[in-house]
Amino acid sequence: MSLSIKDILQQKPIGTTQEVKGWVRTFRSNRFIALSDGSTIKTLQLVVDFENLEEGLLKKIATGAAIRAKGDLLSSQGKGQDVEIHVTDLEVLGESNPEEYPLQPKKHSMEFLRDIAHLRMRTNTFGAVMRIRHHLAYAVHDYFHKKQFFYLHTPIITGSDAEGAGEMFNVSILDKKNPPLTEEGNIDYSKDFFAKETNLTVSGQLEAELGAMALSKVYTFGPTFRAENSNTSRHLAEFWMIEPEVAFNDLNANMDLAEDFLKHVIRYTLENCGDDLEFLESRLKEEEKSKPEKDRSEPLREKLQFVVDNNFRRVSYTEAIDILRNSKPNKKKRFNYLIDEWGADLQSEHEKYLVQHFNAPVILFDYPAKIKAFYMRLNEDEKTVRAMDILFPGIGEIVGGSQREERYDVLRGKMNDFGIDEKELDWYLDTRKFGSCVHSGFGLGFERLVLFVTGMTNIRDVIPFPRTPGNAEF
Amino acid sequence: MSLSIKDILQQKPIGTTQEVKGWVRTFRSNRFIALSDGSTIKTLQLVVDFENLEEGLLKKIATGAAIRAKGDLLSSQGKGQDVEIHVTDLEVLGESNPEEYPLQPKKHSMEFLRDIAHLRMRTNTFGAVMRIRHHLAYAVHDYFHKKQFFYLHTPIITGSDAEGAGEMFNVSILDKKNPPLTEEGNIDYSKDFFAKETNLTVSGQLEAELGAMALSKVYTFGPTFRAENSNTSRHLAEFWMIEPEVAFNDLNANMDLAEDFLKHVIRYTLENCGDDLEFLESRLKEEEKSKPEKDRSEPLREKLQFVVDNNFRRVSYTEAIDILRNSKPNKKKRFNYLIDEWGADLQSEHEKYLVQHFNAPVILFDYPAKIKAFYMRLNEDEKTVRAMDILFPGIGEIVGGSQREERYDVLRGKMNDFGIDEKELDWYLDTRKFGSCVHSGFGLGFERLVLFVTGMTNIRDVIPFPRTPGNAEF
Repeated sequence: MSLSIKDILQQKPIGTTQEVKGWVRTFRSNRFIALSDGSTIKTLQLVVDFENLEEGLLKKIATGAAIRAKGDLLSSQGKGQDVEIHVTDLEVLGESNPEEYPLQPKKHSMEFLRDIAHLRMRTNTFGAVMRIRHHLAYAVHDYFHKKQFFYLHTPIITGSDAEGAGEMFNVSILDKKNPPLTEEGNIDYSKDFFAKETNLTVSGQLEAELGAMALSKVYTFGPTFRAENSNTSRHLAEFWMIEPEVAFNDLNANMDLAEDFLKHVIRYTLENCGDDLEFLESRLKEEEKSKPEKDRSEPLREKLQFVVDNNFRRVSYTEAIDILRNSKPNKKKRFNYLIDEWGADLQSEHEKYLVQHFNAPVILFDYPAKIKAFYMRLNEDEKTVRAMDILFPGIGEIVGGSQREERYDVLRGKMNDFGIDEKELDWYLDTRKFGSCVHSGFGLGFERLVLFVTGMTNIRDVIPFPRTPGNAEF
Repeated sequence: MSLSIKDILQQKPIGTTQEVKGWVRTFRSNRFIALSDGSTIKTLQLVVDFENLEEGLLKKIATGAAIRAKGDLLSSQGKGQDVEIHVTDLEVLGESNPEEYPLQPKKHSMEFLRDIAHLRMRTNTFGAVMRIRHHLAYAVHDYFHKKQFFYLHTPIITGSDAEGAGEMFNVSILDKKNPPLTEEGNIDYSKDFFAKETNLTVSGQLEAELGAMALSKVYTFGPTFRAENSNTSRHLAEFWMIEPEVAFNDLNANMDLAEDFLKHVIRYTLENCGDDLEFLESRLKEEEKSKPEKDRSEPLREKLQFVVDNNFRRVSYTEAIDILRNSKPNKKKRFNYLIDEWGADLQSEHEKYLVQHFNAPVILFDYPAKIKAFYMRLNEDEKTVRAMDILFPGIGEIVGGSQREERYDVLRGKMNDFGIDEKELDWYLDTRKFGSCVHSGFGLGFERLVLFVTGMTNIRDVIPFPRTPGNAEF
């Protein structure tokens, strides 16, 4: 099998004959082709002998064309590359009419590229983002596998609406125009595919807990959905979530796991995605040129290295409220939501302040029970729960987790308080009835992680085909 | 951090003090606890000194209870284990009332266990299946990663209904009882979340092709859906699919990839899931005891080794039809669908016959264009397409793939023939317009693979929470 461009540039087998296939990025002076095959952000230089090339062929060598080229790999005399192929055999496999091809070698806006998401992976920026996304996903699987976690596929279509993590998409095969009705005139879901009303999952956590109570350590990595009309640069209607769940772990062990995990996967990209990160780093620098110096972000790889090198600051909610209450932006009423008293829900502006205040990733823990989900472990103070959120520079919350309420009676009581039907979740309650134990887990929105690592600013640009209100193209 | 039971049984650190946490499988003679933590199918023997144990505590040591135990790890004098812990400190973390706990140490039917899928992962059989499922998933990611493929998350919610791979689930947030209507009285999807009608994906292939035309080698591994009312042991409404797609690969390279890939992941389980496979192998043997000898399957690991060791037989559709037409079951009219002439669609009975005939996994290729999808590469004979199906002993089709039609005009023609709206798939056509090239890929239903490797007979038993007609529990 022939070598990829990544292999050729790494191994530099000078003096060998190589055959490569890829897409023309640029063609200059009728002589130098920059060829990409997507295996790396770098292009391979092909030198063609235009005097001996048929003119018809020469014309077809245009940006975006697919070609096959063969020749000797030699040291390059030119700047910018160590090796190049001196082409003796060239074939254009698929043309690309320069009048029509939307991706010309110039800067395109992110908005324009979103409209042609079917082609944008061919650009430097999206190629880099997609390769880093791959490496992050691989690092996730590899991390958990080596720590003896089992990958659990929790259901996507769910009959339970209990977690209350957000608005849900309904899944149905009923005729929308003439749906079957019950005698009372309601939709007769017994006629639907699953003989009940079903939705797309908002989280695999409850099912992951079932796995953890059997296999001790499990994790999910699958799509989750929110039918929320949030047209922001931070929200997707369809996104991928990672949810580890560990039996016998308390909240401290949970924090240890989350911190170690995040550092590992970020370190992995620093070690394995150098070229792509370098490109995105200079892209970001270029983007921010027009900003005043104080508003510019630090160099991408330095930001990542900082997270890897430093302990996350663990701060209780109560302590955080104190800090926020006495902060300048609170006193000067610069926060949109002023912090008056204990119990307030933290907004993204507060999270950002805290990260800046500590100049480190922050783990907030022990939140008021009232602002967190029913399944979180109630502390002895009966006011707070063993919840944690991890806040990252620039993007705010990246991880949310908790120790779970393992006491049957307390959990039942909480479900009642939250108005959750016990019958709906009898299977969940069963785990507290039979061999219950302390256990904990967390959720990480994968796109938030990709956003952080790539330094991109809009979450629609870190997933191949984003789903947002009004948009389900491709 | 404390060692898992798997670690303890492998490393045997005799003479050290160990603390373990897990669930009681059995407790006999008031003395021997078989403890499971799910890390392995094996249990760890704990020896308790019942004379010095409080009676209240002793009573709570029941099947299913969660416990923490500490003591010295010593060589075991008893049969069945090398090491055991002599417990000096024991705590019951979560009780399990034997009167209520459904999983008692006896044989339960698969049907019963399906009803309590929230607990069944605690059994030997489902623990083994879930661990093997994990290892297979890991092997998939690891295989493609090492071959420089990029993992691509193709969309789950899709606005296009073009592939025609099967019935789809509708995704909507419209009020079913009072849906918004257009002036013509139709459902007004412009008011829906995505401002158009959307469904759950049946395949990520078309989007994977977009990835391959930019990054050369990509694969998907995500959930796919079929709203088909198939209540069989081979069908799920929600299942996970793996779809690699490679630019510049023709059908032969595609077959090579599929064969190498399947052998790799199966070999991986033979090397890494020995204990679980051994258990499932004897389980299967036990299950088939009552069958006449000739109907019994070969030992599980031998079956897997056979696939790893042997070349898959590559047979053209035309040759296969000849074989089937002249076969005994065809002549004696024992097939439900008799094979009369070239062009017939192959049924599962024919696929099974071919696998037996060749006594090997079979790759069928070059199918009639009429019975295959529009995107498959038309051969020069203009009658057949470069499709391939891989047939495995016992389960029939496990992989379906093809070389894709890379010629713009031919593809457009095929879309017209198949009644597919060009405007719906203009993005797909664009890849044939700009830098098109030969490319190929295939799809593998992950649960079919788990079914094959584990020797289970019902596909509902190889996914944690199966979705089938009338069933979306948990």
